[in-house]
Formats: sequence, structure tokens, C-alpha cells
Amino acid sequence: MLNEKELKKQYEIYKNENINLDMSRGKPCTEQLNLSLPMLNIKDYESVSCDTRNYGVLDGIDEIKTLFSDILNIPNEKMIIGGNSTLNMIYDVVTRFYIWGDENCKPWGKLQKVKILCPVPGYDRHFDIMEKFGFEMIQVPFKQNDLDMDTIENLCKNDDSIKGIICVPLYSNPTGYCYSDETVLRLAKMKTCKDFKIFWDNAYAIHHIYEKVNLYDIFKACEKYNTEDRILYFFSTSKINFAGSGVSMLAGSKNTINYMKKHLSKQTIGYDKINQLRTAKFLKDKQNTLDFMQKHADILKPKFDIVLDALENNFKDSDILSWDIPKGGYFVSVYTKNNKAKKVVELCKNVGLILTMAGSTYPNKLDKEDKNIRIAPSFATQTELKKAMDIFCLCVKLANC
Amino acid sequence: MLNEKELKKQYEIYKNENINLDMSRGKPCTEQLNLSLPMLNIKDYESVSCDTRNYGVLDGIDEIKTLFSDILNIPNEKMIIGGNSTLNMIYDVVTRFYIWGDENCKPWGKLQKVKILCPVPGYDRHFDIMEKFGFEMIQVPFKQNDLDMDTIENLCKNDDSIKGIICVPLYSNPTGYCYSDETVLRLAKMKTCKDFKIFWDNAYAIHHIYEKVNLYDIFKACEKYNTEDRILYFFSTSKINFAGSGVSMLAGSKNTINYMKKHLSKQTIGYDKINQLRTAKFLKDKQNTLDFMQKHADILKPKFDIVLDALENNFKDSDILSWDIPKGGYFVSVYTKNNKAKKVVELCKNVGLILTMAGSTYPNKLDKEDKNIRIAPSFATQTELKKAMDIFCLCVKLANC
Repeated sequence: MLNEKELKKQYEIYKNENINLDMSRGKPCTEQLNLSLPMLNIKDYESVSCDTRNYGVLDGIDEIKTLFSDILNIPNEKMIIGGNSTLNMIYDVVTRFYIWGDENCKPWGKLQKVKILCPVPGYDRHFDIMEKFGFEMIQVPFKQNDLDMDTIENLCKNDDSIKGIICVPLYSNPTGYCYSDETVLRLAKMKTCKDFKIFWDNAYAIHHIYEKVNLYDIFKACEKYNTEDRILYFFSTSKINFAGSGVSMLAGSKNTINYMKKHLSKQTIGYDKINQLRTAKFLKDKQNTLDFMQKHADILKPKFDIVLDALENNFKDSDILSWDIPKGGYFVSVYTKNNKAKKVVELCKNVGLILTMAGSTYPNKLDKEDKNIRIAPSFATQTELKKAMDIFCLCVKLANC
Repeated sequence: MLNEKELKKQYEIYKNENINLDMSRGKPCTEQLNLSLPMLNIKDYESVSCDTRNYGVLDGIDEIKTLFSDILNIPNEKMIIGGNSTLNMIYDVVTRFYIWGDENCKPWGKLQKVKILCPVPGYDRHFDIMEKFGFEMIQVPFKQNDLDMDTIENLCKNDDSIKGIICVPLYSNPTGYCYSDETVLRLAKMKTCKDFKIFWDNAYAIHHIYEKVNLYDIFKACEKYNTEDRILYFFSTSKINFAGSGVSMLAGSKNTINYMKKHLSKQTIGYDKINQLRTAKFLKDKQNTLDFMQKHADILKPKFDIVLDALENNFKDSDILSWDIPKGGYFVSVYTKNNKAKKVVELCKNVGLILTMAGSTYPNKLDKEDKNIRIAPSFATQTELKKAMDIFCLCVKLANC
């Protein structure tokens, strides 16, 4: 390893290069977006049930439901199709529980305390929503690359103010962890308050890169324990076709869908059905969509390789950085020594490399140990990414001098 | 006029015809939707500022703002571009005031009483939103085809729990009334509580049919009286291009836009920008859009003629029905004698003609005098419409036998 003087010298060289690299968000790159360009040739507007150009069809057209049903194994009638953003759907669902409550349960906004379980590190925008509504976010660190179900069960069985858990069960953001069958079954089975909700943001359901991991069907699990009403299952095509113009989905029990539709009917006449039809016609069916996702993986894999190789080459025998090796998804999660993450991000920023703000993978942006950094390899070109990783690794070393 | 027996005989004939006509909603017809078909040929995705296919740009791309600015004379920076529905934007805005309040004012949900002024007859979906949030809707009947500003001013100056007014200022739904310059200026000037809001749903801003009515610029009016923060200006292309896939807009003061963006940023990463760009490229500029709207008017005018001619031919010398003659918009509003509207709608329904539910043009669906019926001529073909009007006129007469 270089000594401090040499590291600083190299850092100064980068500083003078006017670098401008952004690895802060999980944005698809241009090459990935180009994969979906043929979709824009699709001009169909006649759905089996309606003229998609006109008003109506609150919960989405059959074609897109049937596609999602094929991919996710969820019946059409358990789905509501939304606009271009699951985040917006999550926000709307929380708003409904906050103001109006769920069935016979008091609105969350009228309760003294609402607590939400947040596996950490996690997705900043999930935490932002919960923070906005003033909920107490209980951090539950992962254990052996899975949910710590002992802790979660213990918390839930003794505290009725814990109203839910928000999580990404497959290729988690940012760790890449995948929940085991046992975890899904225990989430379905565990004792909770009666209006407990599992915000199941399956954003990377088919976003395999190195290995295809199967996620146990949460509907099947909850049916077994008669807890289907706790499921709030989110999915979208944002990272399948166009990130800014995808189609989102909420799935849940019959009770849940009825409840959501009742509220949604006052909110909109229905979401963009032209885009729903076009997306359905483009992706066709499960197999075609999986084949299409392989093209994404082919673009993403070399980028993940660059990140993981750089980490391996620089820190394999070092204790100043550790990391998770994801099998899919959009991120690589790294862990500095205590109280070094902010410093590393700051050092990177000062030479023009923007990383996700340190701390933002924790509720209230507060990583007490100041260790976790989320690396988002997708958007940069391979050349940019190599440079970015050179800088990153240098900054980790510098922060430890 | 036919006698009761002859009317009943004719009614029985219709009953046996298995008619199925729907004039309940202001849906554009297929011919209108076809006007925008060339839009689907536009495959551009590069905005001046971004790749519209990717994430980002919370408040909308420049191209669509510039188009709306040209049409409405509102600066780009006073706009937020939304998804496919202004209704959804209105709902979101109300939600924000309800939960978080406005600047230094208490959240509406924490107040003992929130009252909203509702000019009647009005738009059912506006009232549905206000009803959902539990607000008291104060009905203010129109006076001489305009807002009754004396009443509105008197109400507002003495009651701080009146938090706003929700209205369609041009070619109002359903009356077709257009607010005078004086009305707009008085709305801007009047004394109100400090967090008073004008929900200005300019849904038919350029939807002229018989005559082009100019609406006084509410921004100009409010600037004059330093009350710009009360403006919530809504507009969309839903009845310009595709009803179900339009682009919506909220405009307001700098304070309002900052407030909305702060909340919106937790709700979504941004709305569908591909559709924003395509809409902007298709409609091009104000003049092109106005020319395009003339094509809509050319389709709609003969339909409005059919409705108005039928009313004139059947009831010109009668006191059992009166009506407003709209200059634009989507509706014809008729008034039966007291306690006859429900009966007419029911009679129509029983022979297969669906009208907007009687009462639904009033808050809580309660038209105390049971007089108003909204006729929506746009969706039906001319042939269907002639038949529908024959049935409608017959049913009005029957209801008065």
C-alpha cells in the first residue's frame, strides 16, 4: 500500500483533473434505456376492454395485469396498476392509513405513536416517507445477510404501536440481501398488532445479475397463516423499460384492494393506460421479460465486476473496508471502519466524484457508526466507473491515514 | 304537446328498443381522440435538459412548461407539471394542507372546522374530494351567470374557517358560465383568512365552441392585491390530446411552488417525462394548439347544436325546463321544475339512457331543489345524441304529467 504522502499526491492529481462523476443514484445507463427504444414504435391503443386513450379503468387494464401476474404469480384481481412510480403508490398508501386508517383500525395520524420497522441499511426514499409522517423508525440491522427475525418477532409481539415493516426483499437496496423462505414465512406467521402492514417493495423482482435467487411467495406464506391483509406488495417496470416512465403496481388481499380502490376513486379517474398497454405489448410475457432482463444483466454485470474487482484488489487483505457481494439489484454496499464513511464521501466529492450521501441508507440519515456507503454502478460508463473506483479506493485509504 | 297517454305509449316503444346510451361523463368521442393519433408517432426522448427516459426532473421538463406558459401566460417557474390528472394534483394539494398545513398556518386536519366555498351547480369530483376530507361545503349559487361575489365576500370576511373556494372559472362544469373580469379581481382583492386558497381549475381554458371568452388573468389580479399565494391554478391536456394520458399542471406563487415541491420531493422522483415531451412536440405552441382546439370545436359544435335545438324545440314556450347556453366547455346544464330532476334521470335510465346522477352537481350529491341535470354531449355520436335527446325530452314531459 502507498504511504500517506503518495496517496495525497495522487489525490491532488485527481483534484486537478476536473472530474465530474455521479454514482449517487441507481439510474439505468443510456445503453439500458436504449434496450426499450422499440417500445416507442408501439402505437396500439385498443385494449381488450377499452380505448386506452379515454378516461376510466381506475385500477389498470387487463393486459398489464396479466403480464405482471405471469411474472409475479399474483392473480389480476389482487392488483391495482398505478402511475410511473411505486414510491408514489407507497406514499399514497401511507397517506390513507395516516388519515383514514385501515378497516376498523384508528388512523395512524391519530395515534400517539406509530413505529415502523426498518431493516438497515435500507432505501433512503422509504425512510424519507416514514420520516415525513413522523413515524418512529426502529432500525433492525440485518443478521447473516437476512432479516433478523428473532428481533423482529420479539419487537412485534410486545408492541402494538409497531404498525409495519418496510423492506426490499430481493436484492435489497443497498445490500443486495435476499430474504430466505424461512424469513418470508416467519413474517407471515408472526404475532403483530391487527393492522400490521408489510411494505414489500419487490423493486428488483427479476433484476438478477450474477445469480437468480427465488423469493418465497409472500401471498402463499400469508394465505397459510391467514394474514394476507398485511401484504402491500409493490412492483414496477421502472428498471425494466424506462426509469422515468414505468408502470407501477400494488398488490394485496381482496380487502386491501377494495380499501385502496375506494380511496383511489376519489383521487383519480385512472392512470395512463396508453403506457400500460404499450408496456404490456412490449414485454409480452414472463419469458420474454426474463430474456429482456438478461440484456440488462449483460450490461450491468461488467460494471458490478469493475466495482467488486476494485474492492477486492485494494482491500482484500485489509480491515479498513468490507462489502457485500450482491447477486442482483442495483447497488454495492460497503462498510468503512467506524466514523469514516462521511469522510470518504467528502473526499470523493472534493475531487468530483458524487456518491450517495453517507448516512442516507439509515432512517433520518443517521448511520450512528458512520460506516455504510452505497455504490451505484449502473449509470456510469465502464471507463468512468474504473476511474471512479480508483478514486473511491484512494479516498478510503486516505481517510484511514 | 302530446297528452300523457301518447307520451307513455312512446316511452314504452323506447323501452322495447334495448337502448344503451351513456351521456353521464364528459368523455371525448373517438373522433376527437383520433385527432391526436399523430402524437403517437413522436419518438423523441431528448429534452433540452435531460434524457426524458430516465429518473429525475421533479417539476417537469422545460418544453412542456414553455408550451403551457405560451398558452396560459404563466411563467415557467410558477409551474409544476404533474401526471395524467389534475384531479390527482388537487387531491394531493388538499392532502398537504390537511396534514401539514401551509407555511405558518395550522394543518386543516387539526382545525375544528374547515369550510370550502362551492359555487353550485359545480363539478362532482371536486366536491367528492372536499367531502372525503370532511370539509363543510358552503353552497354559493351563481347569480346572473357569474359568481355571486357579494355573498362570497361577505362570507369570507367574517369567517376564518372558510379556507378556500373550488371552481372552474371558464365554461364552468356544468353551467358553462365564465367569470367576469370584475369577479376575478374581487376574488383577488377580497378579505379572507390568511391561508385562503382559490382552487382555480381552468380545465376548459381553450375549449371554446360557440365563442371565445377571455378569462381575466388571476395572477395579474392577485399581483395587484398582493394575494398571489392564494392561487392554485390547475390545467391539463386531458381534453386536448388524450383524456386518459394528458399532462397536468399546477401553477402558483413562488411560495406555493416551493411549498409544493418540498412535499412532492418525498412523494415521487418525477412524473412521466416522455409523455411531457411528446405532448409538447405535438402541440408545439399556443397558435398551433388553438388551431387544434378548433378541430375539437368542429366536432363538438354540431353535438351541442343537437342538444340545444332539442331543448329549444321542445321547451321554448314551456316552464317545465330551462337551461344554460354554454359558449364552450363540455356540458349543458338544465333545470327542471322543483323535485323533478331525479325522476327524469330515473325515467331515462329505465329506457337505457344514462345521465349524470341527479344531485351530483351539488356537494354531498344533494340538490335540495332536485332541479339540475348535467348533459354531456361529447361522447355520443350525432345519431345517438338525437335519439338521446328525444328520450330526454320525452322523459321531462312525462315527469311533469
